[in-house]
Amino acid sequence: MPGQLKVAVIGLGSMGSGIASSLLRAGHPVTGGSAFATPAEAVDDADVTIVVALNDAQTEAVLFGPDGAVGAMRPGGVVISSATMPPASARSFAARAAQSGIHYLDAPISGGSVKAEAGKLTVMASGSPEAFRAVRPVLNAIAETVYELGEEAGIGAAFKIVNQLLAGVHIAAACEAITFAVELGLDINRVFEVITKSAGNSRMFENRVPHVLDGDYSPRSAISIFTKDLGIVTELGRMEHFPLPSASSALQLFIMAEATGMGGDDDASVARLFADIAGVHLPKGT
Amino acid sequence: MPGQLKVAVIGLGSMGSGIASSLLRAGHPVTGGSAFATPAEAVDDADVTIVVALNDAQTEAVLFGPDGAVGAMRPGGVVISSATMPPASARSFAARAAQSGIHYLDAPISGGSVKAEAGKLTVMASGSPEAFRAVRPVLNAIAETVYELGEEAGIGAAFKIVNQLLAGVHIAAACEAITFAVELGLDINRVFEVITKSAGNSRMFENRVPHVLDGDYSPRSAISIFTKDLGIVTELGRMEHFPLPSASSALQLFIMAEATGMGGDDDASVARLFADIAGVHLPKGT
Repeated sequence: MPGQLKVAVIGLGSMGSGIASSLLRAGHPVTGGSAFATPAEAVDDADVTIVVALNDAQTEAVLFGPDGAVGAMRPGGVVISSATMPPASARSFAARAAQSGIHYLDAPISGGSVKAEAGKLTVMASGSPEAFRAVRPVLNAIAETVYELGEEAGIGAAFKIVNQLLAGVHIAAACEAITFAVELGLDINRVFEVITKSAGNSRMFENRVPHVLDGDYSPRSAISIFTKDLGIVTELGRMEHFPLPSASSALQLFIMAEATGMGGDDDASVARLFADIAGVHLPKGT
Repeated sequence: MPGQLKVAVIGLGSMGSGIASSLLRAGHPVTGGSAFATPAEAVDDADVTIVVALNDAQTEAVLFGPDGAVGAMRPGGVVISSATMPPASARSFAARAAQSGIHYLDAPISGGSVKAEAGKLTVMASGSPEAFRAVRPVLNAIAETVYELGEEAGIGAAFKIVNQLLAGVHIAAACEAITFAVELGLDINRVFEVITKSAGNSRMFENRVPHVLDGDYSPRSAISIFTKDLGIVTELGRMEHFPLPSASSALQLFIMAEATGMGGDDDASVARLFADIAGVHLPKGT
């Protein structure tokens, strides 16, 4: 298709390849992945660079490191930065990109690799109206929902942090509750059915408890994502002098699960941590 | 209407009077409230006694204390016990009721006083099929949803405990997150809009955060309900040798809110606790 934006997707893993697939399906020329030695080579001639990184340090290396992406982009190009990071990092990256004439969209994503592949991510983004306008077709190709949250970088990052705080606490609580239900001798399939219609429900309970019921801990989203994200959340709380006891308690549970060797497993593995500690039996996968 | 069950509702407060209103609307003769000096007088000649109490100690006093309800009921009558309590207490009350020829339905309710008045409570109940059959019209009059969870007392209690664990943690997390969002400089009306459609959502976030947005802490459900219920939850965990870090952390927040004088206020007041500690400003009511 003529006039389609050329997009570089920089970042390994299933999120990056899912995003690339969605863009190709929408007709955008895509570069990226292991075919290129450096970010600069991958972004050569691209209109838009999507950085799918774990955190701000990785994002910084991709954008501003040796052979980084920003130096290789033509002026007027747009960076879409998807990592969860402190708002201050996003603001700093936007300012540095602007010095090279590059727009920066602070655009954390949520939804996991299945939704990335389907082009149905949720994007919580902030940045200039020009940047949004320029990348609209790209966002439409990768996301089902795009929240435009403000004109300054850092706002998208802050929304994502609030979301991850809640999601992390809810996963930990779901795992604590469903394993306690086993301890109490309850039929946990029935518990799932009742709680999902009751005051105790959460999006994460609804989404993660089926992994426990199926005994399937293959990583849809890994424990290590939440040790990372709740680490960012609680560190930001400390810097802001704001206590976050619920987030801190949940973080410790993910760290415990990671410490026992489950860091690469599905984040519902916090239930296995409780089961191991309390000596109760959860369903086994087939 | 002929053949309607005569029901005694024992228990003060808006839950009891809401339940009584729903029963009267459905045509059941209802006794109860402050017109009677003792439970025994109130239940005289009733087919069904609904006990709306705070906990197992209150329930025990109503049922088995001096001039208690069970001794005054005709054999074959049914007690519907609605308090959140440890499963062992429910089992013990059912056994003692059975010695007097009285059926016992372990039937914790959730939904608050507004739903009680509307006849739209949720009931998580266990007990004999005979007991369920006998009180079906009564349950239909007071509840929108009745879960029949098993034939033994204690199962309903355990389901309610799992629900309260989750609801309590989710309220505490919602208050922590929305106040942190203020600290981060976000528009919290927009945060509410985005989170309720995102991975971080919970039924309690959706229900309680509007109280914070409106600055309205009149008690729909009070802080003191959760110091009580999470107290029951965590004490049961201790007795079962099952760690409940998320529930314990949330309980401490409700205790802190109560300690600062907000025990009778809406449970979303945990947000005001965070705001007071961190020196941020939440919306004020009008």
